[in-house]
Order: sequence, then C-alpha cells, then structure tokens
Amino acid sequence: MNNTFLKACRGEKVDYTPVWMMRQAGRYLPDYQRVRGTVTFLELCKNPELACEVTLQPVDILGVDAAILFSDILIPLEAMGLVLEFHEKRGPVFPDPVRTAAAVDRLRIPDPEADLAFVLNTIRLLRRELANKVPLIGFAGAPFTLATYLIEGGSSKFFFETKKMMYTAPELYCRLLDKITACTSRYLKAQAVAGAQALQIFDSWAGILGPDDFAQYALPYVQSIIADLRQVTDIPIIYFANNGATLLAQSKSSGADVLGLDWRIDIADAARQVGDAVALQGNLDPCALLLPREEMAARIKKILAGGRLARGHVCNLGHGILPETPPAQAKLFIDLVHELSAA
Amino acid sequence: MNNTFLKACRGEKVDYTPVWMMRQAGRYLPDYQRVRGTVTFLELCKNPELACEVTLQPVDILGVDAAILFSDILIPLEAMGLVLEFHEKRGPVFPDPVRTAAAVDRLRIPDPEADLAFVLNTIRLLRRELANKVPLIGFAGAPFTLATYLIEGGSSKFFFETKKMMYTAPELYCRLLDKITACTSRYLKAQAVAGAQALQIFDSWAGILGPDDFAQYALPYVQSIIADLRQVTDIPIIYFANNGATLLAQSKSSGADVLGLDWRIDIADAARQVGDAVALQGNLDPCALLLPREEMAARIKKILAGGRLARGHVCNLGHGILPETPPAQAKLFIDLVHELSAA
Repeated sequence: MNNTFLKACRGEKVDYTPVWMMRQAGRYLPDYQRVRGTVTFLELCKNPELACEVTLQPVDILGVDAAILFSDILIPLEAMGLVLEFHEKRGPVFPDPVRTAAAVDRLRIPDPEADLAFVLNTIRLLRRELANKVPLIGFAGAPFTLATYLIEGGSSKFFFETKKMMYTAPELYCRLLDKITACTSRYLKAQAVAGAQALQIFDSWAGILGPDDFAQYALPYVQSIIADLRQVTDIPIIYFANNGATLLAQSKSSGADVLGLDWRIDIADAARQVGDAVALQGNLDPCALLLPREEMAARIKKILAGGRLARGHVCNLGHGILPETPPAQAKLFIDLVHELSAA
Repeated sequence: MNNTFLKACRGEKVDYTPVWMMRQAGRYLPDYQRVRGTVTFLELCKNPELACEVTLQPVDILGVDAAILFSDILIPLEAMGLVLEFHEKRGPVFPDPVRTAAAVDRLRIPDPEADLAFVLNTIRLLRRELANKVPLIGFAGAPFTLATYLIEGGSSKFFFETKKMMYTAPELYCRLLDKITACTSRYLKAQAVAGAQALQIFDSWAGILGPDDFAQYALPYVQSIIADLRQVTDIPIIYFANNGATLLAQSKSSGADVLGLDWRIDIADAARQVGDAVALQGNLDPCALLLPREEMAARIKKILAGGRLARGHVCNLGHGILPETPPAQAKLFIDLVHELSAA
C-alpha cells in the first residue's frame, strides 16, 4: 500500500512528498463530465456506485497519493431536515434560511447509518475498490462554514446575516452551532468506522472572521469535533481554514494533525508560525496549473522547500482545482511533485 | 481646520485618533438614498453638485475627520475608451473584456483635465464647500485591481482570466498594466493639483495574489505611481491592499505613508510587522457596527491600543460600510473612537 500520505500527515519520514488535489474528482476531467452528464449533482453524491467511480478517476488518471470521497459538505445539512437545491449559477441554496429559535429547534441530528447511509456505503465500496492502493480521505464542513450556508440561505459575499446573528443574538448562534457540531461529530465518526483512513474538515469561510471572532465563534466547535473523534479513532485529521493566514496561531490548537493552507501564505512562513506542532498541507495557487513546466516546477520547488520546515508536508493546491484546468497540466503537477521531492 | 487626519497619516502627535469610513457616503444613509433616487450611479459620479452633496453628508451627519470624494475606481477606465455598465445585481460590467494585444492597444491614456473634468470639478467644489472643515481624500484603484475588472469583464470569484494572462501571456499583462499605471498616475496627480489633500489607492483584489505574485504583478505598479506622485506633491498617500495580511511585508515598501488594513488581521500584529516605517489605517469589521455599545467599545479600545504601536493610526472600518448598517450605529462608532482615544 502507498501510505506516504498517511505518514506525511503523522510527520513520519517519507521517500517523496505525497500529493492530492482538492476537488480532484471534478469538472476538469472529461471522465467526470461523462458520469455527471447522466445525473444531477445531488444524485451523483447519493449514488455509491457513481460516487465511487468519480472518486477513483484521479487516482487512476493522475496518480495522486490519496483518494477523497466524492460528496459535498452540505449533504448532512439536508439530512438535518432542510431543503437543499443546487442552482447552476447561484450555487447551493437553502430556500428556508435558519434565523430563528424555532428554525434551530426544528433541525434534527441525523443518524448517519440511517440518514446518510449512501455516504457510508460509498466509503465501504471505495475501500474495497481501492484495495489499499492509496488511502481514502473522508470529510465534512466545519460548523462555522456550514452555519453560514444555513443562516445566509446559500453562498454570500459579506456574510452579513451570519455576523448579525453572532453579534446581536449570540445565544441563538451558539445553539445553532452546537447542533451542527453534534451532527458533524457523529457524521465524521461514522465515516471513520465505515473505513475512512483520514478526515478533512473544510472551514471554507473561516477567512471572513478576524482572529478574535474565529477564536470565539468558529474554532471551539472544531476543537470539540476533533476531541470527540480522538475518543474513537487515531486516523489523521486535517483542518483547512481557507484564507486563514491570520488564524494560524489559533488553528494550531484545533487538535488536527495537519493544517491546510491556501495559496496566499508562503508555506515557509506558515511552518515558522506553527512550529513542530502540526504538519502542513498545500499550497499551490490552482491557477498556477496553467504555467509552463519550468515555471510550475519553480513554484513547486519553493513549496517543497517550505514544506520541509514543517513537521510533515502533504502537497496540494491552495484551493479546489478549477474546471478550466487542462487535465494534462494537473497530471504535470502531480508528476513534478513526485519527481522534485524524491531523492 | 481639523487636520487630525493629516497629522496621523504623517505620524505626528494628535489629541485623539481621527476616523473616517470607507463608503461613508453611501446607501446606509437615507440622505444619500434621497439623492441617489433621482439619478443613476454613474450620473451621480459625474455630477459635481450631487457628488459634492453626498460627499459632505457624512461629515455633517457623523462628524468624521475626513471627507472622501464620491466616485468609483472604475471611472477612469471608462475614460480609457471602454463601455462601463452598472447592473443592480451583477455590479460593474465591461461588456468587452480586454484580453488581446489589439484590445490593449486600443486603450487610450485620458487627459484628466479634459476627459475626467467632472472629477476635478467635484474636488474643486468640495474644497470650497468644506472650507477647511476637514481634509478631502481623493482616490483611485490600484492598477492590478483595475486590470482584473478589464480582463474579467467585471467582478469575479476566482480571477481565472486575470491569472491566466499573468501566467501564460506575461508580456501582454505587463503592457496592459503599464497603460493603466500611466493613466492612474496622471489621474491622481490631477486630483492633487485640483485640491485633494490626501490620496488613497484601493487595491481591492490584491488579496487574491500570493506574496510572490503580488511582488511581481501588482506592487511595482503601485510603487511607480507613488514615486511619480512624490515628484509633484507631498500630501499623504494611503495604500489599501484588501485581504492583504500576507502582503504587509511587501506593502511596506509601496512608498505610501499609510497602509490600510482589513479586519482579518490584529492591528497590533500588523504594527509589529511594519515597524516604524508607515502609519496604519483600520480596521473594525463593518459588521461589528451592529454590536451593542459596550461590545463595540471593547473592540474599538483594542484597535486603538494596537494602533498606538504604529507610527500613526487613522481609525476606519476594515472594508466599506454595509448598506444594512443603521446610521445611528455608524455615528456611535465615530463618537466612540473620538471619546476613547482622547485624554
């Protein structure tokens, strides 16, 4: 088994730097488009055979060192009893935003084995199909990020409603976050039990918070989930606070083994900030996949050098791969990381 | 004359911390809405009497320590020969994006006195109307930020086209940026000559660049403009690289007297990073204007304490004031800054 990824997460010695890409199963791959053309996005998430197929594609086509479950961070929110729609232009929409005590009280804590069985079945199927070729990463959204979707009713620019609830109705905010945290904790535990070999927590919108708000309104819920998970599993946990350069000092105490970095921060600086406490994951600008070979290689070299200052380094993009990326350039990235980090 | 703002920009001793707000002339004020109800946004920008009226409103209503010209960073791009539209939902749109050498060659460098006379007339009118009550800030967009609008054809989420041009056609990118820089340099010089007493350069999208790309593709154009301005004027220059926490070390060498901060960074940390080289401006989260008095005061106290570590401090929000803000809360912010920083 190629367990380079798991070793790097744990800060153990590796022969080369492992690499995978956020959204590696996605629209940039014609093979994905072919599958996706036959079903809606939500249908794809809920069909274990198809979700398994697209999860495996980048492993076979690109040679990445980890597979990541094909799903969406909003899936468990639907299981909490909310209507979730995906619109081609607007992205995800919750037609009934959660902004009142009554709406929070109506949310149910799903039983993953019953309500999210399709996710766990996908994980079980994937473990069989992968046959230990590479490890499988499960994932969930962080409570703060999930809450923004519920409160705003979808994506947002300024997250006014979320911050309004935080600042003017903090008790309501905390009740909502506690409920999402309980749900996420059970969901990730179930993924680990079903066979996920690492877990990533995506805090996609953490970067809209200043450090004090992050410490008060986002991080404690992540810490609680990770502490819960540690009771039942010792698989590596990755915490990715997107646009979180100013949140690193706090994120260090999340309890995660690995902190994900977006491309805005020099990974060497990040390594100096977090010291020997955690490994790092990242952080090439997804648009840099457009660069000619030599220039892409120069950027990768710099990231690998910075990564060597950390306890461990998993190479990745600083954000999801963009649909416009030529697959050959994605393959070049994976190959260059392997080539330049070996020896 | 209340010249507290100018003194703080220069790092001179002040009796209290001056404060103004980005977008202080804007939709949150019923007085602004009344004026705006009679004309389109572009008509308002181009009408010196009306632009003057809305510029003065926050000075009279809120007691801010500086007025900022009512205009838009995209105005000079229209004068470069492009069609500019403002759509209610999508925001600004350039129906003909600039992505080819031919499109770059077609751009003209406007003569501000002829092509942007309405801006300069607004400045002259404002200086008369302000009668030295508070200083007047002029402004422009930074070349990188302006280029993103031209290349993308409007706002963007991932700025794929901009980075694609940078990474795959760097010569074309540089030609475009050189032209925008020449235009901006002339435009800001003309504003200073017309009577602007300080100038702010808005790099609203700088934060989508990693530090190396910022140093190569954005900062040099700002440095060139500021060096040009220094030939003709010594008025304070403020550079605001939005979401630029990881760009501070480089921004320090922009040549500006003051660096603007968004709310994501602790201002005390920023002060430690930039040392005694520049003053700082910022940085309350605009949503924190919703907080009850005591909690808002606590945040302001922390910002003021951090600001005292810098060479000088101009208090401000970390981003433009949001339309949903109650005017009384905006007034509370201004009053609290004055109250808590005096003595």
